[in-house]
Amino acid sequence: MKIGVIGGGQLGRMLALAGTPLGMNFAFLDPAPDACAAPLGEHLRADYGDQEHLRQLADEVDLVTFEFESVPAETVAFLSQFVPVYPSAEALRIARDRLFEKSMFRDLGIPTPAFADILSQADLDAAVASIGLPAVLKTRTLGYDGKGQKVLRTPEDVVDTFAELGSVPCLLEGFVPFTGEVSLVAVRARDGETRFYPLVHNTHESGILRLSVASQAHPLQALAEDYVGRVLQKLEYVGVMAFEFFEVDGGLKANEIAPRVHNSGHWTIEGAECSQFENHLRAVAGLPLGSTAKVGESAMLNFIGEVPAVDKVIAIDGCHLHHYGKAFKAGRKVGHATLRCHDMATLEHKIAEVEALISN
Amino acid sequence: MKIGVIGGGQLGRMLALAGTPLGMNFAFLDPAPDACAAPLGEHLRADYGDQEHLRQLADEVDLVTFEFESVPAETVAFLSQFVPVYPSAEALRIARDRLFEKSMFRDLGIPTPAFADILSQADLDAAVASIGLPAVLKTRTLGYDGKGQKVLRTPEDVVDTFAELGSVPCLLEGFVPFTGEVSLVAVRARDGETRFYPLVHNTHESGILRLSVASQAHPLQALAEDYVGRVLQKLEYVGVMAFEFFEVDGGLKANEIAPRVHNSGHWTIEGAECSQFENHLRAVAGLPLGSTAKVGESAMLNFIGEVPAVDKVIAIDGCHLHHYGKAFKAGRKVGHATLRCHDMATLEHKIAEVEALISN
Repeated sequence: MKIGVIGGGQLGRMLALAGTPLGMNFAFLDPAPDACAAPLGEHLRADYGDQEHLRQLADEVDLVTFEFESVPAETVAFLSQFVPVYPSAEALRIARDRLFEKSMFRDLGIPTPAFADILSQADLDAAVASIGLPAVLKTRTLGYDGKGQKVLRTPEDVVDTFAELGSVPCLLEGFVPFTGEVSLVAVRARDGETRFYPLVHNTHESGILRLSVASQAHPLQALAEDYVGRVLQKLEYVGVMAFEFFEVDGGLKANEIAPRVHNSGHWTIEGAECSQFENHLRAVAGLPLGSTAKVGESAMLNFIGEVPAVDKVIAIDGCHLHHYGKAFKAGRKVGHATLRCHDMATLEHKIAEVEALISN
Repeated sequence: MKIGVIGGGQLGRMLALAGTPLGMNFAFLDPAPDACAAPLGEHLRADYGDQEHLRQLADEVDLVTFEFESVPAETVAFLSQFVPVYPSAEALRIARDRLFEKSMFRDLGIPTPAFADILSQADLDAAVASIGLPAVLKTRTLGYDGKGQKVLRTPEDVVDTFAELGSVPCLLEGFVPFTGEVSLVAVRARDGETRFYPLVHNTHESGILRLSVASQAHPLQALAEDYVGRVLQKLEYVGVMAFEFFEVDGGLKANEIAPRVHNSGHWTIEGAECSQFENHLRAVAGLPLGSTAKVGESAMLNFIGEVPAVDKVIAIDGCHLHHYGKAFKAGRKVGHATLRCHDMATLEHKIAEVEALISN
């Protein structure tokens, strides 16, 4: 089976590493000459709107999936004429726009922060008056890793901010005094079977994920599964989805979904029986899902900007390096390490060891 | 770091899958147009004696390693002029010739079956008279998976047998009434550090490995480590080596070594903290070795001739498929499954489940 992937970054790379042992081959459509998934498959170097290359991809592969949600809708629609695409155009349409996403949460009875659609500075001023400060203004589309958003704390922060974010459609979200950020990675098969990984505790810095720790019997697991299940069913979703929540007052408020394998699920490569990458491929290929059970206790640390000295990283027992083969650049995710240990105390200790390498 | 691999079969493929997350790139030299490692790196399609392509490989990579031991000595010598090669030319020279191999075992005080060098039918007749029947006549070089050997049970079996095996140098080995076949996979770093995986119980059919089960605290582990350690030190070996033994009278007799990652170590991909493939690459690249400890109980079943229906294989909980992407052909190793479970009883049950798929 040959899988087409729109995007050839680290997620595509890890999909190929997971799918090759299943006998799958890969083709990546990515305009970047140095797309880091390219060594693991065919690389169609073209823009995402290049219909000639999209048609070529569709002709070559059995199905198409996505590495990121900001694929142009036209691309998805075009491909869908010729080849199955998972997740669906509708799932991508919702996930790529914060307004559609939040509105869906509200319609499904999933708590969210207060939000308002912002199409002008006047909209923003009115929404701030209603929702209050602090609040976060985010572009409705194309934001990631803290890009395309601004925290508004004082009335001065609000002045001219709509223009500052590019005068594009935005969403204002009320600030949530959360006690933690968690995510649930789920997978849904073509036949509707759904499985959930354990909730993951996430720590961000400057809007970029730094650390994810897989939880042990988290008290909010069942609630999170309920919420995520509603979304999966509503979208008739096929593949892996990650759902990020704020922990607030012992409950959950929905932050956002990612209709794809997700950074907070990278620990599953070594830390779960079947990784998110393999499970995504199983789902889209119509194969039986794999176990989402943990193998020991597990955490993932991102390497941002640069990968520390490889010999030092892998000298830590239980530490598994994932180097993305990308050029080092400030703020760029260039690798991660998964830690897998027998107990949480050891895990905490190992996390500190890896963190010491990062800060050196 | 770019690694050159002589040979582009499934061992090269699994080396690339293990090395890519370490940030390594791969180039495979293999004459086969459909070499199954090729999708995971650069494929130099050339004969193993093609000096132009060998020189190109040497210029492109940081070091060269091998997927099989039958590489021509001239190839190794040629490459060694330009680039580090691991394991060394000397290790390959010994391992590729059953006479040199058995003589080394004897010199190191490692018990072996009785053996005799056979260069003619007269040598064979004399050796049979001295060693007795049953015995096994094996070509000194180029044998694998039961090829290049003949079991001699009666005096009639001996007649003209030297010519039957091609009138090439052979070794006659006395038949060993073994109770089991075990192998020890070991890895030795450039600095001499050595680690051993748990002993593996192997079951062969028609000379081809069918099943490997990683043992729990095997009583012969320490003895096997002693024997293998002698060989590794003698050869100043760098990389992974597999050592096959016969279990005889509660002790071990040396069968043969493979100076490379080995089929009986495939279970380590999921069943050990750090796989034989990653540890081989760590060793040859001068990186610290990884843990050889088991993760649960583990077994590997080979898929020979064909891979059973993928959906059925991966529907078995704890079963990890490794499809080599090779054309199916009788007698050919085309994939394997690793089982990883919490306990031996479950493992036995799962082995039977996979075996049922193979026999259907």
